[in-house]
Amino acid sequence: MFPYLQEINKFPYHDYRVMPHGCYYSPALVSGERYRLPAQQRLTFVLVHGSWADAHFWDGVAAVLRSHGHAVYTPEYAGHGIDPNKDVTHAMITKSVVDFITKLNLCNFVLVGHSFGGTVIQKVAEQIPDRIKRLVFWDAFVLKDGESVVDEFPAQMRKSFELLRAGSMDDTIMLPFPLFRDFFVNTATLEEAKQMYASVTPEPAKPLFEKLNLKAFYALSTPKSYLYFYQDNALPQGEGFGWHPHMSIRLGQSRLIVGDGDHFTDSRTRPAMLAQKFYEAGRD
Amino acid sequence: MFPYLQEINKFPYHDYRVMPHGCYYSPALVSGERYRLPAQQRLTFVLVHGSWADAHFWDGVAAVLRSHGHAVYTPEYAGHGIDPNKDVTHAMITKSVVDFITKLNLCNFVLVGHSFGGTVIQKVAEQIPDRIKRLVFWDAFVLKDGESVVDEFPAQMRKSFELLRAGSMDDTIMLPFPLFRDFFVNTATLEEAKQMYASVTPEPAKPLFEKLNLKAFYALSTPKSYLYFYQDNALPQGEGFGWHPHMSIRLGQSRLIVGDGDHFTDSRTRPAMLAQKFYEAGRD
Amino acid sequence: MFPYLQEINKFPYHDYRVMPHGCYYSPALVSGERYRLPAQQRLTFVLVHGSWADAHFWDGVAAVLRSHGHAVYTPEYAGHGIDPNKDVTHAMITKSVVDFITKLNLCNFVLVGHSFGGTVIQKVAEQIPDRIKRLVFWDAFVLKDGESVVDEFPAQMRKSFELLRAGSMDDTIMLPFPLFRDFFVNTATLEEAKQMYASVTPEPAKPLFEKLNLKAFYALSTPKSYLYFYQDNALPQGEGFGWHPHMSIRLGQSRLIVGDGDHFTDSRTRPAMLAQKFYEAGRD
Repeated sequence: MFPYLQEINKFPYHDYRVMPHGCYYSPALVSGERYRLPAQQRLTFVLVHGSWADAHFWDGVAAVLRSHGHAVYTPEYAGHGIDPNKDVTHAMITKSVVDFITKLNLCNFVLVGHSFGGTVIQKVAEQIPDRIKRLVFWDAFVLKDGESVVDEFPAQMRKSFELLRAGSMDDTIMLPFPLFRDFFVNTATLEEAKQMYASVTPEPAKPLFEKLNLKAFYALSTPKSYLYFYQDNALPQGEGFGWHPHMSIRLGQSRLIVGDGDHFTDSRTRPAMLAQKFYEAGRD
Repeated sequence: MFPYLQEINKFPYHDYRVMPHGCYYSPALVSGERYRLPAQQRLTFVLVHGSWADAHFWDGVAAVLRSHGHAVYTPEYAGHGIDPNKDVTHAMITKSVVDFITKLNLCNFVLVGHSFGGTVIQKVAEQIPDRIKRLVFWDAFVLKDGESVVDEFPAQMRKSFELLRAGSMDDTIMLPFPLFRDFFVNTATLEEAKQMYASVTPEPAKPLFEKLNLKAFYALSTPKSYLYFYQDNALPQGEGFGWHPHMSIRLGQSRLIVGDGDHFTDSRTRPAMLAQKFYEAGRD
Repeated sequence: MFPYLQEINKFPYHDYRVMPHGCYYSPALVSGERYRLPAQQRLTFVLVHGSWADAHFWDGVAAVLRSHGHAVYTPEYAGHGIDPNKDVTHAMITKSVVDFITKLNLCNFVLVGHSFGGTVIQKVAEQIPDRIKRLVFWDAFVLKDGESVVDEFPAQMRKSFELLRAGSMDDTIMLPFPLFRDFFVNTATLEEAKQMYASVTPEPAKPLFEKLNLKAFYALSTPKSYLYFYQDNALPQGEGFGWHPHMSIRLGQSRLIVGDGDHFTDSRTRPAMLAQKFYEAGRD
């Protein structure tokens, strides 16, 4: 018998969507005073988005980071966003980011890669290691030397992607909404999911299937962090798959930061949480 | 040397037991205004309890869900609650739930199974798939075709259950308090643990040892969610065992929602948290 | 397109460092009333620190526990703290703790071991089992019979430790700051990391490499708890390594408590959270 406890059930359920996990109030706040943020070390961030996304993916988190005094750059790479050409290779994508960085002569920055963006920062780091202060992989692929992205998929997921690819006219893969809903925005409301899906466009397939030579990456001594969100189910969370610890462990010595988000939702609904986690992953 | 930091240690420790994980306050709240809950999509829930429980297991969470406008049904199945007959099979248990649903002509509902209840909703879904909007497994068994519940136990736990079964007069298993305390209500106070244990009665043993034919289940395309609480230690959390990802992965494409509860405690102490997680797992 | 949502980004980011994970406010607090702590069962704690630490590691958490009415003892063992002799064995360390307990005639206490301290409480429990109410392993080694601490390290980490040992004049291992930063205080600010590192001294190497006979430990029926912090990356979190579930599972029936901390930081920055988790792990 589990009796109904009125005092518990009457308790209002508050909105935690806009606030970061682990965001606790202080007595000052309760008594109505304004909370003063502790000064943050000023950093430069270069944020590299993943598949089915473009530079606008970072609009929310970049705004928060800038409000804390950080410099933020969000390169958009070949085959994505405003680029009409979808016939791109992984090397072209890497070149987009390297060119962006060298043209602006950026140095001493924290290079963040999300999802597929993990493979991009692996290759960018091989080409311009001396410009990079730290690599941050946020629920991002850390491929082994010689692997492709789809090599990290369970067999059934890989097969789905091969079918989606085969059904395309221009060698792209469009993520059907039900897959996007379950794998990318599982903690979102349906409305949020639809809003985010509205910006999803077909993804060039080739770079997901290319096997990458990563010998140089694994010889780098660049400091590294892995940021893992424990509601991210874009890949299975274990049993030989997944972001963490399956791929994060490949970084060897690195800093782990964990949050409670999923793969896409928090970039839109809790950018302050995401910005704080990027800061924790990126600071000295 | 780790000096004592007075300002930190004086900080009062607040009660988080009644509030959901991730329940953050809003500025409105701090300034004393009442928080208005965002409107929820109206859903119908059918909640299927697990072993050593009956329909009252859901009293708290059902009340919260109803206060949000949802319809909630909590069928009690053969061998449990008010049923004096403990000599039941898994098929009889499934029939109880199917009969409950068809008698009330329920359709388009979210079918939630907890723990052993996962095996029940697997079989119920095989019989009345068209009535079900979505299956939600909350720290619930997702058995492989041909498996029994005890096939998912580590060897030592299985042996304990076999001994408990052998020592019973009526082929039931009574969970000793120390096991209940450690595996089901590890985050509870002792008082809460005792209160919850007071409603525990011997569990029919047979259905836990029956191997289930689940070929039809694995052919269903019903949407599915897995709700995992990371302090739930009723099964080991890995090394080839456990709710997630070990069994959740069997659902294939599905929605993952994660919370910080354990196996039983939150149904009593944080029903608002549980209701919110059910909503997140069950909504469109 | 992910537009910038002004109302979200303007939301202040609050300090959660001093507050425990899951520390939610109550309506009373919001309206300005003081929160009254629920009475806790009075317990006696004996806290056993790990490597690169001494008894002062516990200053913060001990103060909080005492403020709740608990008795707290923090034995410092051979080769650590004020002991100038670094040439110690695991047996000498165990003897330090056993002697401390028997000299004070402590009984019916909760024995907590952190990190390397897990191996110490395993051996202490073998010698004075009747004095111990419960064993609590907090991100602590639970060695198999015949194992050493370094047997639980990934190959590369073990090699690093062997090199550090070989480079020492007195068979100790000094943890370089970059390793300490990444593995022990990953969630800390750089300032906090440096402050904590200031108290780190070379660790006697021998006890980390000694293989321990633990047959008697595995015959004990002492109640056990495992406290796991999910940002603790001192060991890899899976793939055949780690605190939980890899080593925690060796305890067999035990109580699991999970928090969001890392290996060292919270002892200094959130002692109230740590004290609450120790209480949850240690209470009846």
